[in-house]
Amino acid sequence: MDYNKKAIKLHKKHRGKIEIKSRVPLKTKEDLSTAYTPGVGAVCKEIHKNHQKGRELTNRGNSVAIVTDSSAILGLGNIYPEAGLPVMEGKSAIFKEFADVDATPLVINTQEIEEIIKFCKYIQPTFAGINLEDISAPRCFEILNRLEKELDIPVFHDDQDGTAIVAMAALINACRLTGKVMKDLNIVINGAGAAGIAIARLLIADGIKNVILVDSQGLIHGGRRKLNSYKKEIAKKTNHKKVKGSLSDAMVGADVFIGVSKAGLVNKKMIRSMAADPIIFAMANPIPEIMPDIAYEAGASVVGTGRSDFNNQINNALVFPGIFRGLLDSKKQKVTTKMKLSASLALAFLIKKPTKNNIIPKVTDRRAVEAVARAVSKKQ
Amino acid sequence: MDYNKKAIKLHKKHRGKIEIKSRVPLKTKEDLSTAYTPGVGAVCKEIHKNHQKGRELTNRGNSVAIVTDSSAILGLGNIYPEAGLPVMEGKSAIFKEFADVDATPLVINTQEIEEIIKFCKYIQPTFAGINLEDISAPRCFEILNRLEKELDIPVFHDDQDGTAIVAMAALINACRLTGKVMKDLNIVINGAGAAGIAIARLLIADGIKNVILVDSQGLIHGGRRKLNSYKKEIAKKTNHKKVKGSLSDAMVGADVFIGVSKAGLVNKKMIRSMAADPIIFAMANPIPEIMPDIAYEAGASVVGTGRSDFNNQINNALVFPGIFRGLLDSKKQKVTTKMKLSASLALAFLIKKPTKNNIIPKVTDRRAVEAVARAVSKKQ
Repeated sequence: MDYNKKAIKLHKKHRGKIEIKSRVPLKTKEDLSTAYTPGVGAVCKEIHKNHQKGRELTNRGNSVAIVTDSSAILGLGNIYPEAGLPVMEGKSAIFKEFADVDATPLVINTQEIEEIIKFCKYIQPTFAGINLEDISAPRCFEILNRLEKELDIPVFHDDQDGTAIVAMAALINACRLTGKVMKDLNIVINGAGAAGIAIARLLIADGIKNVILVDSQGLIHGGRRKLNSYKKEIAKKTNHKKVKGSLSDAMVGADVFIGVSKAGLVNKKMIRSMAADPIIFAMANPIPEIMPDIAYEAGASVVGTGRSDFNNQINNALVFPGIFRGLLDSKKQKVTTKMKLSASLALAFLIKKPTKNNIIPKVTDRRAVEAVARAVSKKQ
Repeated sequence: MDYNKKAIKLHKKHRGKIEIKSRVPLKTKEDLSTAYTPGVGAVCKEIHKNHQKGRELTNRGNSVAIVTDSSAILGLGNIYPEAGLPVMEGKSAIFKEFADVDATPLVINTQEIEEIIKFCKYIQPTFAGINLEDISAPRCFEILNRLEKELDIPVFHDDQDGTAIVAMAALINACRLTGKVMKDLNIVINGAGAAGIAIARLLIADGIKNVILVDSQGLIHGGRRKLNSYKKEIAKKTNHKKVKGSLSDAMVGADVFIGVSKAGLVNKKMIRSMAADPIIFAMANPIPEIMPDIAYEAGASVVGTGRSDFNNQINNALVFPGIFRGLLDSKKQKVTTKMKLSASLALAFLIKKPTKNNIIPKVTDRRAVEAVARAVSKKQ
C-alpha cells in the first residue's frame, strides 16, 4: 500500500488534520455574556488572584505545546520551518484521539538555542507542558536541559525520551522472551543523536553496565577526539573496555543491537558474530538498519523495527500520549527518570506472554495510554 | 442576572472553553500510517518544495494566533500574564462558532515591544494570521505598525481596528437615522488609547474633518507638551481650531460623542450643550460614560454602549470573526483601510431601516460574519 499517495490524498481532502472547537454554548446573548464579556472578567480576576486557578477555569490544565524548529523532521532532516507542520498536526491528532490532550503545534521560525529556550518561556503561561519535537542533536540536549531547569511546567523531548521509553519496554519483553538478564546485557547502540544518547542514558539509569555507542566515526570512547560534550559525558559511562573500531567490532559478542541511525548498516555477518539469541531493534525510518527477514535468517531471536508493516513496531506513539496524560492529571512539574522507567515497565507488562512476534503493544492498543499515564502519575 | 457568578460556574464546569479535535480517522494501523508516519513524510516534502502548499495540506490556512501580553485585559488593566487566558479562550470559541476559524490563544510572558514582535515572527510559519489582543497603548501602535511591515501574514489588533470598524458602522446608521451627513460631523472622542486613536484614524480616512480627541489631560492639540508620538501624529489631523480645555469644552456644538474611556465622565449638561440630535456612543466597559436613560433624558437622539443589556451594543465581536474569515478565504497578506471601511459599511447595511433602538446588528446576528468577510475579500 502506498502510504505516500494515501497521505497526500487524505491531507488534501481534510486540509490538514486538526481543528479547534468550542466546548460552551454560544447561541444567545446570554451565552456570549457568560463565556465572553462581561462575565469573563470575573474569571480573569480569579486567576489574577491565584494563578493555580487557571487549571480549573481555563483549558490550560489540559493544554500542551508541540514545539519544533523543523531541524530534524522524521528521516527528512532540516526542512525548516514550514514543512514540519504535518508531523506536528499528526502528533496533535494522536494526542487528542488517544489521550484527550489538547496539543497545539507550534512550528517556529528560529533555530537558535537561546531563542528556542526563550520562546518556550514566553508560552509557558498558556500551557501545562511542552513536547519538544524533531529538534536536531546536539542542540536538543542543551534545550531540554535548560528548560527542565528554567520552566515550572514539564518538558519532554519525544525524540529523546519517547524513543528511549518504548525501546526499553521492547527490551524488557525481549529479555522475558529469551531469558536474558537485563543488567548483564551487552548492548550496542548505533546512532548517537537524540534517540541514541537518550536510550543509553535510560539503560544505564536502569543498571545496565555494558553499553557501547557507535556514531558515523565509529565506536565512542573517552579517548576519541572532537566529541561534543554530550558524547563526552556518555563516553564516561559506556564502553568501559575502551573498544575502538567500527560497528562490526562492537557487534562481536553483543546481546542486543539497537539501531537509531541509517538504512542498511547491519549485515548477516555482524549478527552471526553476536552472542546467542541476539536481539535486534533496527529502528531507522523508513528503512531499517537490516530487514527483519534477513536478520532472522542470520539467527536473530527477535527483531523489532519502527515500521507499521512489520511485527514489533517500536514507535513512540505508544508513549507520548500517556506521558502527558499522566503529567497533566498529576500536575507534575518535571519528567523524572523514575517516571520513564516506570512507563517502560508498564508498557512492557501490557503483554502477558511475549512472543517473537509480540514484544511491544500495537500502536493502536488503547491500554497503552492508561498504563503509561498511571505509571507517570504515581512516581515523583 | 449576575454574569460574574454565571461565568465562574460555566468556566469551572467546562474547565475552560475550547479544545483541539482531530478531523481524520485514527482507529487503525492504516489510519496512523496515513495521518502520521510513514505517510506524513510525503506531505512534509510537498510543503518543503513549495511553502504555499501548506495551506492545502495542513490546517495553517484556517489558523490564526490570538496573541496577548495581558497588559490591557478588558477594564481590568495589566493582569500579566496568566489571567488574560479566559478572554482569549472566549475569542477563540467565538472565532470557531461564528466564522469556523481555528484560533489559538497565546498568552505570552513578555511585555517588551521587541520581544513581542520577535515572538510573532517566530510563530509565523504555523499561522495564516495574527489577532493581537488587549495590548496596552501606546505599545500596541508600534507593535502593529512593525508587524504589518515585517510579516507576510495579516495582523489585526482587535482593540484598535475591531472597535473602530464597529463604531463606524454604528455611526453610519446613526447618520441614516438622524439625517446628519457623515463628512460634516463634529465628533468628540474621549479616550486616546488603542481604540480612540484607531477610531479617529478611520473617521479621518473616511473623509470626516472635524474630530477632536480628549485624554485624561484634556483636549489633544498640536501645541500640547509631552504628547507621545501617536498622539502627536493624530493631533496634526484633528482639532484644527486648536481648541484647548476639557471634555465639556469639546462637547459644545458637537454632533457625536464617542467614549472609549471611563465610567461616568459625561453628564446631562454636556449633552445639552451639543448640536441638535446628538449621537452618543458611551462604550466604556462595564459602566458607560453616561447611562442611556440619562442621555436620552438630556436630549440624545440615539445612544449606543458596549453592553449586552442595552439596545445598540457596539461590540467588536461583530467584527473580528468576519475580518479573519475574509482574510483567510482570500489569502490576504495585509489588512487595509479600504477593507476596514468596506466592513463598516457592510455591517451597517445589514440593517434595512435603522431605528433609535436598532443601529447595529446584534452580536448573535449570524449574517455579520458573512457580510464582513465578503467586504474584506473583495478589497485590496
